[in-house]
Amino acid sequence: MMEDTIAAISTPFGEGGIGIIRISGEDALLVLEKIFRRPGGRRGMEDRKMTYGHIVDPADGKVVDEVLCVYMKGPKTYTTEDVVEINCHGGIVPLRRTLELVLRSGARSAERGEFTQRAFLGGRLDLTQAEAVMDLIEAKADRTFDVAMGQLEGKLSEKIRDIRKDLMDILVNLTVNIDYPDEDIEIVTYEKLNAALKSAAQKVRTLLDSARTGRIISEGLKVAIIGKPNVGKSSLMNNLLRESRAIVTDIPGTTRDTIQEKLSVKGIPVLLTDTAGIRETEDRIENIGIQRSKASFNEADLVIFMLDSTRPLSGEDEEIIPHVDPSRAVAVLNKVDKGQVITSDQIRERLPGVELIEASMTEETGLEAIEDAIVRRVYQGEVSMSSDSMVTNARQSDFLSKTEKHLRDALRLTDLGEPLEIIELDVQEAYENLGSIIGESVSDDILNEVFSRFCLGK
Amino acid sequence: MMEDTIAAISTPFGEGGIGIIRISGEDALLVLEKIFRRPGGRRGMEDRKMTYGHIVDPADGKVVDEVLCVYMKGPKTYTTEDVVEINCHGGIVPLRRTLELVLRSGARSAERGEFTQRAFLGGRLDLTQAEAVMDLIEAKADRTFDVAMGQLEGKLSEKIRDIRKDLMDILVNLTVNIDYPDEDIEIVTYEKLNAALKSAAQKVRTLLDSARTGRIISEGLKVAIIGKPNVGKSSLMNNLLRESRAIVTDIPGTTRDTIQEKLSVKGIPVLLTDTAGIRETEDRIENIGIQRSKASFNEADLVIFMLDSTRPLSGEDEEIIPHVDPSRAVAVLNKVDKGQVITSDQIRERLPGVELIEASMTEETGLEAIEDAIVRRVYQGEVSMSSDSMVTNARQSDFLSKTEKHLRDALRLTDLGEPLEIIELDVQEAYENLGSIIGESVSDDILNEVFSRFCLGK
Repeated sequence: MMEDTIAAISTPFGEGGIGIIRISGEDALLVLEKIFRRPGGRRGMEDRKMTYGHIVDPADGKVVDEVLCVYMKGPKTYTTEDVVEINCHGGIVPLRRTLELVLRSGARSAERGEFTQRAFLGGRLDLTQAEAVMDLIEAKADRTFDVAMGQLEGKLSEKIRDIRKDLMDILVNLTVNIDYPDEDIEIVTYEKLNAALKSAAQKVRTLLDSARTGRIISEGLKVAIIGKPNVGKSSLMNNLLRESRAIVTDIPGTTRDTIQEKLSVKGIPVLLTDTAGIRETEDRIENIGIQRSKASFNEADLVIFMLDSTRPLSGEDEEIIPHVDPSRAVAVLNKVDKGQVITSDQIRERLPGVELIEASMTEETGLEAIEDAIVRRVYQGEVSMSSDSMVTNARQSDFLSKTEKHLRDALRLTDLGEPLEIIELDVQEAYENLGSIIGESVSDDILNEVFSRFCLGK
Repeated sequence: MMEDTIAAISTPFGEGGIGIIRISGEDALLVLEKIFRRPGGRRGMEDRKMTYGHIVDPADGKVVDEVLCVYMKGPKTYTTEDVVEINCHGGIVPLRRTLELVLRSGARSAERGEFTQRAFLGGRLDLTQAEAVMDLIEAKADRTFDVAMGQLEGKLSEKIRDIRKDLMDILVNLTVNIDYPDEDIEIVTYEKLNAALKSAAQKVRTLLDSARTGRIISEGLKVAIIGKPNVGKSSLMNNLLRESRAIVTDIPGTTRDTIQEKLSVKGIPVLLTDTAGIRETEDRIENIGIQRSKASFNEADLVIFMLDSTRPLSGEDEEIIPHVDPSRAVAVLNKVDKGQVITSDQIRERLPGVELIEASMTEETGLEAIEDAIVRRVYQGEVSMSSDSMVTNARQSDFLSKTEKHLRDALRLTDLGEPLEIIELDVQEAYENLGSIIGESVSDDILNEVFSRFCLGK
């Protein structure tokens, strides 16, 4: 499988100054040499030297593009194999044509994530590091990127390896005691075993505790805005977006979807849903709209309930109130600059314990408080911990949960004084589940699942 | 102006394996050295050598991205200046952050097309070649790309320089005859002058004749589909799109706009408008919709008038017929597989001389004939000529028209036997207008206009 040579466009789709075709595999240089012509008929590619020339169709001698090429000899490359990168003009036609020539010259089209998969199979990255690559690329907010970069640098893997080493020590001791009980060795007591298992289980728990925050930082905090028509939901959305844009400013092309927005609030990725927007834009299929509103309301990590402070609570407000869970909601009392009719106290009476923010979307007051409420929600009630070792996806936390379960089982069996052989089985399972996280002893199915999440060309 | 160092993201906006920050100017290497750290603290960048390392924020030592960098010493670079390219992870956050660091380290944000402008100012590209760069990148069809590549290789410039040389010969002869009439020199006769001017004017005319085809190949043939509801307009659009997609297939991300589509028909770019689509999707602002329908109908290079062969001509058909100009229309008689009620002859009677195609959108017959009709329309009535020297934009053809006008004036004055001093002025003007095409003796305003068409990072 590692023997064939793969190729793909590795830059984003679209128009730009430069677009790159990446080729990896033992024939990478051979493929390049069939289609690359240097000025004056010069030949040969020096390792890692950026070289000017033309991509030429060998069939008819026609120039396909003017390019810069680099050949990087393995194993110190992204994939650990020989890699060639062709820097073409960044348009659709030159990239498509050059790729076609590359494929005709002996490479095959790379699958999603296949370059990174080769980096994994070549032993340069473990599985959490490979996953981090895609998280880096997809990151929309600074915190997301930082956590992924920490993971790429191996900080989560380090914690996993540390726990695995503890478990390996336990396993070695257990095996020796089981197989050579008469030898002059350290005797495993149930007391010592209990302590060792507890310590390992505690480390697993700490990682699992980071999973909720990690998931939010990786995928975004789900925030739903709810409230009656004209209460200022869209203005809030626009205000938050504008603040967010200030951060992602230089880059053009971000488009606006009126229903759901992905934005960055103080470096935290947020998926913001204007529940009203759904209903209003899909009035022809109202039922679906309301269904979706409800779904995004129910799934939200945080609900922002907007109220109009210049009018008494209306029937529409009253309809919403019973559905609001004060523990995961923020009530925003809007239009406080326009003569207040209802007060914060009245709202507190109806929604005891709810966090309450007075705001004016037109005056742009209260926004900072709303942003702070969002950020607080991410870290709420969690042990402060190094972001570098956060668990960021469901695959990782699933295996950690399984690990924890087996360790708890082992502990229970230890407390019951069951035979070491029985306890050993659970420790073994825990050890293997941890291995799956970093890609040791992991099945092909899981590998395929992981890499199919990637974009083409990575 | 060429003294400062500029930087921009040079790959398309979006997510991919690789994204590139390009830096150009005399401080390019200096900027890189402030933020690039190689493993083991190694220092120095070898010319053109792809080098692995990390982008690190000098303010806090934080790793911003893992990258490959290359430093290319001028003048044999894209801009003719020192150039640095940083290959980052192809996501929004790593590119934005790295660019921010680059800008903080002494570079300024590049304007649109500024890298190519420097290639022009550095004398590596003339103005038609610089324009060709953007055409290459924006090309959606093979023919567009080929013509732009020819222009980048200097084939249009060569023709322009050839005519300029002719005019310079004339100017030199005129000057000598005016200033040193008594010397022993070749005497300019009105007859010889007439022949030389005619020859030059003919060459200019040949280039101008290529402008319409060149414009279409560069911008796309405007085709409007018209016809009553349910006659098969959308099916035709979908069928043509599917054929086109087969060509641009490998590349993901192309989105569908129901009103206007840019597609490639046998390598020719086509802007296809479904006039009905406009009305149907914008029913709330019907007037604007109809206005736009009319505009795209009036501006079309080719109108495809669809008729339902299974029903007699309806009032709606009759409303359309008077507006159809047979010389720039194709009538498509659809649903011929379903029992024909109206015949081709009937249509020909109503639209004398119109090109007529029998088709079935459901059976997918007649498509090839429609495609051929589109392609024929591009080259219709034109001298077959080398695509390499085509005039592709309005700026080029405006200057050519002015050149032609001055040459015609000079010819007229010659025929009238006016003094050489008077004739010389027009030849001079012709010479300078030709110079403007390739960017010699061109004003700053024109330069700014040309490069503002570019995307960022090129």
